[in-house]
Amino acid sequence: MKKTVIIEKEEVELKNPILIEGLPGLGMVGKIAVKYLIKQLKARKFAELYSPHFAYYVLVDSKGSISLLKNEFYYWRNENGENDLILLTGDSQAQTVEGQYEVADAILEFARKKNAKIIITVGGYRRDVTGTPQVFASATSPEVLKKALDAGSISSPPGSPIVGAAGVLLGLAKFKQIDGICLLGETPGYMPDPKAAKSVLTVIMRMLGLKLDLTDLDREIYKIAQVEEELRRIEEQRKAAEREVWREEKEKISYIG
Amino acid sequence: MKKTVIIEKEEVELKNPILIEGLPGLGMVGKIAVKYLIKQLKARKFAELYSPHFAYYVLVDSKGSISLLKNEFYYWRNENGENDLILLTGDSQAQTVEGQYEVADAILEFARKKNAKIIITVGGYRRDVTGTPQVFASATSPEVLKKALDAGSISSPPGSPIVGAAGVLLGLAKFKQIDGICLLGETPGYMPDPKAAKSVLTVIMRMLGLKLDLTDLDREIYKIAQVEEELRRIEEQRKAAEREVWREEKEKISYIG
Amino acid sequence: MKKTVIIEKEEVELKNPILIEGLPGLGMVGKIAVKYLIKQLKARKFAELYSPHFAYYVLVDSKGSISLLKNEFYYWRNENGENDLILLTGDSQAQTVEGQYEVADAILEFARKKNAKIIITVGGYRRDVTGTPQVFASATSPEVLKKALDAGSISSPPGSPIVGAAGVLLGLAKFKQIDGICLLGETPGYMPDPKAAKSVLTVIMRMLGLKLDLTDLDREIYKIAQVEEELRRIEEQRKAAEREVWREEKEKISYIG
Amino acid sequence: MKKTVIIEKEEVELKNPILIEGLPGLGMVGKIAVKYLIKQLKARKFAELYSPHFAYYVLVDSKGSISLLKNEFYYWRNENGENDLILLTGDSQAQTVEGQYEVADAILEFARKKNAKIIITVGGYRRDVTGTPQVFASATSPEVLKKALDAGSISSPPGSPIVGAAGVLLGLAKFKQIDGICLLGETPGYMPDPKAAKSVLTVIMRMLGLKLDLTDLDREIYKIAQVEEELRRIEEQRKAAEREVWREEKEKISYIG
Repeated sequence: MKKTVIIEKEEVELKNPILIEGLPGLGMVGKIAVKYLIKQLKARKFAELYSPHFAYYVLVDSKGSISLLKNEFYYWRNENGENDLILLTGDSQAQTVEGQYEVADAILEFARKKNAKIIITVGGYRRDVTGTPQVFASATSPEVLKKALDAGSISSPPGSPIVGAAGVLLGLAKFKQIDGICLLGETPGYMPDPKAAKSVLTVIMRMLGLKLDLTDLDREIYKIAQVEEELRRIEEQRKAAEREVWREEKEKISYIG
Repeated sequence: MKKTVIIEKEEVELKNPILIEGLPGLGMVGKIAVKYLIKQLKARKFAELYSPHFAYYVLVDSKGSISLLKNEFYYWRNENGENDLILLTGDSQAQTVEGQYEVADAILEFARKKNAKIIITVGGYRRDVTGTPQVFASATSPEVLKKALDAGSISSPPGSPIVGAAGVLLGLAKFKQIDGICLLGETPGYMPDPKAAKSVLTVIMRMLGLKLDLTDLDREIYKIAQVEEELRRIEEQRKAAEREVWREEKEKISYIG
Repeated sequence: MKKTVIIEKEEVELKNPILIEGLPGLGMVGKIAVKYLIKQLKARKFAELYSPHFAYYVLVDSKGSISLLKNEFYYWRNENGENDLILLTGDSQAQTVEGQYEVADAILEFARKKNAKIIITVGGYRRDVTGTPQVFASATSPEVLKKALDAGSISSPPGSPIVGAAGVLLGLAKFKQIDGICLLGETPGYMPDPKAAKSVLTVIMRMLGLKLDLTDLDREIYKIAQVEEELRRIEEQRKAAEREVWREEKEKISYIG
Repeated sequence: MKKTVIIEKEEVELKNPILIEGLPGLGMVGKIAVKYLIKQLKARKFAELYSPHFAYYVLVDSKGSISLLKNEFYYWRNENGENDLILLTGDSQAQTVEGQYEVADAILEFARKKNAKIIITVGGYRRDVTGTPQVFASATSPEVLKKALDAGSISSPPGSPIVGAAGVLLGLAKFKQIDGICLLGETPGYMPDPKAAKSVLTVIMRMLGLKLDLTDLDREIYKIAQVEEELRRIEEQRKAAEREVWREEKEKISYIG
């Protein structure tokens, strides 16, 4: 394999599809959101993307089977609305600058072939969060951005960079006459963050008129909150132990003195 | 996008144009100088350069619109003089060795197509500065260098390297039969440095017989001087606080002893 | 040399060959295992692989002769069984992501040309080891994996990554209709580990119905154990010396105080 | 410039030429040795090599002129002997693995075109040195190595790697039916080391039957020895000052206590 390739498992015709991308990144916001969409909508996988620009390891699944790092395309037929969905998630982003451009290019060519006119990319925005995480939106044009703002997101502060696939895909989209929106959920980013993913999904649901049950996501949020609580507890014990050692050391010095 | 591309927005015929490059770099000297020229001369954008060798993020502008990192070409028609100007600035330089060579090559090909016979590159030269920053000049030949020296710059010390686009462009220019001058303004380099940019602009104005109002630049210089003053004040407070902590610690040890 | 090349020294026809790969990696488990097979089976070298993606140094052999880093293919004719063997080992793996994919691709193309239908890759699995190292297996499909499990290995924990050639070869094998098994011997990994290699060889021998004398390997294991013992002794002395210094320092403080 | 190029300034026919390479590297041994040969033999430059794999800066010379990093080929007509010489030195080696292979390939193609049948590469071998630095030799074959050993070098210890151009050139030479010898002068390597270069030149002179005046090199050796002496003196003062501070601190603690 010398170049990025997309292998179609099933030939599908889609109705004005919207592509939603969520690859691994800050707080895993994009991947969590898109995987949740795939599960809730019972979307079907129809294509896989492989690239020599992904990292050079493979993963073992629960049956002991090996597979190359890949990105996966799913589709969902929207019986009641105008737009079918293409959902894109995966194991990895490209590891180099040139790789990022090549992979984004391959994805956009595929999107165009499938007649997608708009792409939504999802990611995290590093911030301390209090309360419900906000969603920052940016887009290929102010008209397109309006759709995201009307759905409850707020405009990304000017000058802020969007790193990786979520950004490069939209930057290159213009050259292919494809519109694009980037939605970034606020997240501290050091742990998988289903709460930020929920905020983004809420915006997507409003934008696309989707109705989704978010109960399973709430369960994830509860689990992560417990893990964080546990980590805080361990950290506190560590600090207490440290203070104790310090106190004992001082006593020794005092004794020596 | 697999290669560096230059997209012309407007087809323009230029009169013996001189290309002046100022991309991000040490003290932002080049970018500040060329952006100032563009603003004062009311130069018009006519081409954009994109490259898979730039960093893999995109930027959001004040309207929430996304754009790929790019370099931009502006032109200015010189009604009273012999040479029109092409002004080149942008968001980024290439990230790898090979990328630097590829992008410089694309810029030079474009310059040749537009009949540019000379290129001026602008950057910073890292030094502690007292008084007005000096401008160090080097060139593709001693004859060309003379023009810069006559305009008030001094010759770069032999052996000094010129890193990045400002250097590679001139190194490659020879192979395209294009003359080149590099002007580096002295700068400590840890902050945007409009003062160094002013020194370089003064040399350029003399060389090209341009008359420019530098008042706006003086305002920038004043603002940066204030920021530096503020940073110095904060640093002093930090040091005073540190000395206080240290004093208290010593008292504690004395007490223990 | 611009691409990876394989140079055949001898044209050989092989009977349903199985390729076993063991390149340098964690604990040198793969390289030790495959080199032992080559020596015990008196396998013959028949091809060499060179690549511009290997590191940029050369090695000097015992006669003062220089050679480029390379990988080497050996063959062994299996008089009593169904499958001849191709044994692959060498000095280096590729240094970049893209290099890993290119080299693996070249190896697989060569394997296919030689009619290999199955590849076994060998490496190390980082773990503290007590007693006999276990062997973790994964494969291109559950059916193929079964052969390795029946021979005494255990299934790799899901989610564990297989880094480098041992992984990428199998990930790409699917695209060439070649089956693959990866065998990883448990190893702390900070030293060449013939013990882990022995565990893997035991699994391979059972799988392929080979009978091998492992006495020489036991000698290696004994030697490494002695080196480890020696290192432990030195470390203990160092610690004792450290404690002594510490004690003296405290006495000085006490005296000063 | 997308690839490594060699530009011939003068078309020369050479008599059984031997190519001697000395590029920047450990202790600058190779570059010092080859530059000394060029100067003493009054060799003439006849070709330049440029590569997008060199570092991305340019250098300014004593006249303020800019030039790309380059490698340079000189020739010397040997009136009294069988072999003319091609001498190769320059500003830089390639910065990446792939670049090292590409540049070495270009050099070897050029050598072959000029009918060179043997290449001598020169570099440093990192070691603490007492007395006259030894020269370690390795070669593409034991027969070729013998010539170097007979001239007073000793065989490189097996397993030692030869990093960079000095190694890769010889590794690739075999594929072009060119013989090669690598001569490494012992050097601590932290400073330009004309002493190590002198040892290597002595071996080369014996091998090729050259008579060279080494007086100028002795002057260099003397200068570097003085610099080292000066650095040692500064280091000692620093240590003495450190001890003084330490003593004062102890007194203060004692006083506090």
